[in-house]
Amino acid sequence: MAGVEQRQNKSGGGKKKEVKKETGLGLSFTKDENFGEWYSEVVVNGEMIEYYDISGCYILRPWAISIWEIMQTFFDAEIKKMKVKNCYFPLFVSPGVLQKEKDHIEGFAPEVAWVTKSGESELEVPIAIRPTSETVMYPYYSKWIRGHRDLPLKLNQWCNVVRWEFSNPTPFIRSREFLWQEGHTAFATKEEADTEVLQILELYRCIYEEFLAIPVTKGRKSELETFAGGLYTTSVEAFIPNTGRGIQGATSHCLGQNFAKMFEINFENEKGEKGMVWQNSWAYSTRTIGVMVMVHGDDKGLVLPPKVAALQLIVIPVPYKDADTQGIFDACVATVATLSDAGIRAEADLRDNYSPGWKYSNWEMKGVPLRIEIGPRDLANNQVRAVRRDNGAKTDISRVFLVEQVKGMLDKIQQNLFDVAKQKRDACVEVLKTWEEFVTALGQKKLILAPWCDEEDVEKDVKARTKGDMGAAKSLCTPFEQPELPEGTKCFASGKPAKKWTYWGRSY
Amino acid sequence: MAGVEQRQNKSGGGKKKEVKKETGLGLSFTKDENFGEWYSEVVVNGEMIEYYDISGCYILRPWAISIWEIMQTFFDAEIKKMKVKNCYFPLFVSPGVLQKEKDHIEGFAPEVAWVTKSGESELEVPIAIRPTSETVMYPYYSKWIRGHRDLPLKLNQWCNVVRWEFSNPTPFIRSREFLWQEGHTAFATKEEADTEVLQILELYRCIYEEFLAIPVTKGRKSELETFAGGLYTTSVEAFIPNTGRGIQGATSHCLGQNFAKMFEINFENEKGEKGMVWQNSWAYSTRTIGVMVMVHGDDKGLVLPPKVAALQLIVIPVPYKDADTQGIFDACVATVATLSDAGIRAEADLRDNYSPGWKYSNWEMKGVPLRIEIGPRDLANNQVRAVRRDNGAKTDISRVFLVEQVKGMLDKIQQNLFDVAKQKRDACVEVLKTWEEFVTALGQKKLILAPWCDEEDVEKDVKARTKGDMGAAKSLCTPFEQPELPEGTKCFASGKPAKKWTYWGRSY
Repeated sequence: MAGVEQRQNKSGGGKKKEVKKETGLGLSFTKDENFGEWYSEVVVNGEMIEYYDISGCYILRPWAISIWEIMQTFFDAEIKKMKVKNCYFPLFVSPGVLQKEKDHIEGFAPEVAWVTKSGESELEVPIAIRPTSETVMYPYYSKWIRGHRDLPLKLNQWCNVVRWEFSNPTPFIRSREFLWQEGHTAFATKEEADTEVLQILELYRCIYEEFLAIPVTKGRKSELETFAGGLYTTSVEAFIPNTGRGIQGATSHCLGQNFAKMFEINFENEKGEKGMVWQNSWAYSTRTIGVMVMVHGDDKGLVLPPKVAALQLIVIPVPYKDADTQGIFDACVATVATLSDAGIRAEADLRDNYSPGWKYSNWEMKGVPLRIEIGPRDLANNQVRAVRRDNGAKTDISRVFLVEQVKGMLDKIQQNLFDVAKQKRDACVEVLKTWEEFVTALGQKKLILAPWCDEEDVEKDVKARTKGDMGAAKSLCTPFEQPELPEGTKCFASGKPAKKWTYWGRSY
Repeated sequence: MAGVEQRQNKSGGGKKKEVKKETGLGLSFTKDENFGEWYSEVVVNGEMIEYYDISGCYILRPWAISIWEIMQTFFDAEIKKMKVKNCYFPLFVSPGVLQKEKDHIEGFAPEVAWVTKSGESELEVPIAIRPTSETVMYPYYSKWIRGHRDLPLKLNQWCNVVRWEFSNPTPFIRSREFLWQEGHTAFATKEEADTEVLQILELYRCIYEEFLAIPVTKGRKSELETFAGGLYTTSVEAFIPNTGRGIQGATSHCLGQNFAKMFEINFENEKGEKGMVWQNSWAYSTRTIGVMVMVHGDDKGLVLPPKVAALQLIVIPVPYKDADTQGIFDACVATVATLSDAGIRAEADLRDNYSPGWKYSNWEMKGVPLRIEIGPRDLANNQVRAVRRDNGAKTDISRVFLVEQVKGMLDKIQQNLFDVAKQKRDACVEVLKTWEEFVTALGQKKLILAPWCDEEDVEKDVKARTKGDMGAAKSLCTPFEQPELPEGTKCFASGKPAKKWTYWGRSY
């Protein structure tokens, strides 16, 4: 609107503080002082999320969906190489099937949304909306799998699922509907299933570490934290230093033969003997995007890793009153063309109703990894000025070496984001051995690595003893990379002989 | 299973009828004699669909999803060129918003599924599942659009929608949940909106004619058939000769300013004047796949156009007792490698527990466009035998010219499928001018083109007068390509002066 535009024009190339005050472009909260409010504000002002009129549901705007699509393109191609095929099963589940596997449904029942009406008519039987698709799919696995030649069966679907949670809805992190992929595979042998669990987990590591620039720990979940109805669960675990909370990044489950038994998924092997299949299921969701925002974002807004950014680079003309404005604009357009041809996702912001300063703040808020400014001096020197979003570093680049320099900077930004995140995460890790140390470290928002006896009752006890406003502590994962565990080491919580090193902490 | 396999082995290279009888590979119904049963059988036996335990919901198997993905890749890239951005809005709608636009909700209310419970708790307010997303999205368009610089706003989402219909559920064609894309755009002027409606319609034509090899008619819907709440609806209309029914292929609606008024989507133009946006919405769905099956399928099963087939070519070894079996198998593998390198989607069926004859039937059922057989004679002559799925034509191809010949044949198959379908469709068109001719033609399952006065009451009257077991006739579309309408031509139904030529018939 003209009114707003005029005010914005007035702010001109002035200091950032003025722009913020006049246009409301900046954030009202800081990441360190009020993390929760900062997060809500940054996902909205960064144009990833719009709050929706149903609590716990969020609108995913193009800025978020483009990140999702980049990860999807990578993951989809990788699983297709593994001979996984995409399919689509219905959103709805009949109650009988949903409840077939007892442990499984106990895990999900409180969160299941039920359709009971269509138009003005009551349905004869209420119908559930999938919270996950094990019970939706496996009756058909039983039908499709007859002999060993039907194995392995490897299916995946990209879809929405619904879990009607009531505690702390948070965009991306905990929402009532979310997008994910869910893979569901069946094998003749446990060995094949075990192998695939780890292949998929490696892809999830790749998404976090190589795309989102977030360090994660691969490991196995405790008995208590294992997927409802599954045999064992592996995960990649991330950590949010500001809140001192662990966050489950993605999970790859071996379901064993438990569902196979309930759904009678049998096959005849080469020798004509009857067997039961071994199954896996694995998923990652739009939660990934939330973790990325939490880990990299700062007080200026989002910070996007170049590999997932819809826009890797924004070119901003910086005209000056007597200078060759048209020449500057032409140089911006030419720069974008050169970079686009080289496969870099670049655009120019040529709007004439915003000042350069306003544009800087705007694209910083949106987290674009690299900004290129072109002013009269740059034009004269056949150069551009590049400003990194991650650390603010400014470099003058000759237009002769534009493409290679920009590529190099994007790579460095990607690497630096990971390195800084890893450094921050590592600084939070506390290796300890006693309950007293544990309580202190928990109070200091640490990610705790402690020797554990691996008993379910002990984990329950830890939860009970740490209950409070902040939520109880729990085991996050037992990392595959285990430090040495000297003979005689005792469990931090029970004093019994320790069996493994396990990560503990509060979590999302 | 071994038992089945033995029986299948016994059938050996025997005649197809024996294979069919022994293995149940063939279809029990023919397309001409029992179209409905044939269709249900072919989508299941062709492994596109599995029936699900909730009526009107179907499992889309990889063979169907791969077609969907190919169309999606095309369409998604095209709309991105048009600067449309993908987003994701929630599955759920609150009742207040859903009911805001009266005409619109009247159109959808009887089919809306309602969530009233989560876990064991009743929801305070029942929540609807989106049947389409106009009312989900437009409150936010009102928020996001302020000035002319926010326009055009062009969003699209790939998602599932739910319409709890009770009449004649049919896989792909009429299901309670289906996948689609829905584009929702807003413009400053009606001209821009009008232009986009037709650009999108052209993409839909392309999907049908160039990908699915199905002839369609572009045109405008009658008042009675216009999208609920919209200004006008354009569509591509296909026709199923076997049932004599038209089928709406995809729709591109101009919504006018009706939703803008209800949802207060206003903007200020360059001169500071207030205006209301002009909106479009447009969608195509998994219905496309059903139309493809209906149009091209035959008594041997599916027939897939090469451009959308997950597998364009299947290579089958035809060993003979004393021949060089290993040499034949090696030639099959080499053939696949050569074709794959050339970008052709090819695989070899090297299973040793099925006879060549069984494999022929199997891949014919699945509709693979081209089969390559390699036997001892082919090996000796450095050639392969190619068999077209569409017309059964057999050609020996020298392995020297393999890639170019196969490419040529796939192009010819694609073209031939379209030509044959067009010929069949055109043969059903009946141009007529009187009610008597109309009734006769309807009885003969014709696609009727008749002069019409374009009055809503007259269309209602046509519906009433043709009601019966087969369903009433209605207007399908007024084609953009209009034959000449001589002065004084009368409406076939009312006898009033005709304004246009319109297609009529029964429809899906």
